[in-house]
Amino acid sequence: MITQKARLQAQLRSAEYLQAAGIAVTRQELDCIEVADFGLSSLDQTGLELLVYVNSQRYCAKELVLFPRQTCPEHWHPPVGNDPGKEETFRCRHGVVYLYVAGEPAAKPCCTPPAGREQHYTVWHEIALHPGEQYTIAPGIPHWFQAGDGGAVVSEFSSHSRDEYDLFRDPDILRETQVGAV
Amino acid sequence: MITQKARLQAQLRSAEYLQAAGIAVTRQELDCIEVADFGLSSLDQTGLELLVYVNSQRYCAKELVLFPRQTCPEHWHPPVGNDPGKEETFRCRHGVVYLYVAGEPAAKPCCTPPAGREQHYTVWHEIALHPGEQYTIAPGIPHWFQAGDGGAVVSEFSSHSRDEYDLFRDPDILRETQVGAV
Repeated sequence: MITQKARLQAQLRSAEYLQAAGIAVTRQELDCIEVADFGLSSLDQTGLELLVYVNSQRYCAKELVLFPRQTCPEHWHPPVGNDPGKEETFRCRHGVVYLYVAGEPAAKPCCTPPAGREQHYTVWHEIALHPGEQYTIAPGIPHWFQAGDGGAVVSEFSSHSRDEYDLFRDPDILRETQVGAV
Repeated sequence: MITQKARLQAQLRSAEYLQAAGIAVTRQELDCIEVADFGLSSLDQTGLELLVYVNSQRYCAKELVLFPRQTCPEHWHPPVGNDPGKEETFRCRHGVVYLYVAGEPAAKPCCTPPAGREQHYTVWHEIALHPGEQYTIAPGIPHWFQAGDGGAVVSEFSSHSRDEYDLFRDPDILRETQVGAV
């Protein structure tokens, strides 16, 4: 759970990162930035800020904002009905993001999972994305990512997005953020 | 037709526009920028520069660069096999782009079509897109667009892209650019 105040603060902070990345957004869009704490109530450690530009039945485009060392926890996109599962391309716009997928584990990974949740991070093939670099993840592939010390802004291009069907390794995670009254 | 030299110059000029828009690209990507003169051999008037980030079977993302007052001519995206036709979202990143689609014509449009080709511009509902503004075009809808006096950089998010199937109002247009030896 996060408070309304914490959500607003994270939206304003996200706006600063988007501005630093040279990405123009409208005032109305800033108010719509989704702040996701994944139900762990520890936004700076496990969290993600999302600005969805378009999510039609055929394609989706978003900006993802990560604060310094903020982690989007390990998850994958399963088939949903006739949809084989979300396919997505991450393109780094600003800062550095470390992406982890199934495959040969990094000998010395650049990231440490959020404290106390380490057992829920199981894939360790590391892909470092700097501005202008990108990587495409096929449906069903477990992955997680963490920003470097300066945070990151990452464009996500994908097939239709149904975040509510994402499956997470950590059983305590709730994809839908609960916002408290204060 | 354009010359190899003209193509290289347009790629370098596009790189400057992308840089001005704050968009990081790799050196390898710059070499892959497509320069399209639509077969009219008048690139500064009728033309478009494209950097394709990803074009999977499910979605596509590109940056479009337009030089000052450069025009992408009137076209539409027809059904191809089981595909109902390309659906696309234009998001202005830098400069101003004027998009024209079917609908109530602008009383005083901000753009004039390239000289001598006016008869091939038939839709006049005007949508001005400034940085951070976007518009989605359904499959089959005729449209054209022109940059303002300072040029423009526009992100395109879409379903799978098959430019070679685009249909153009102007019968002299060839979608595939011919590059001469010099």
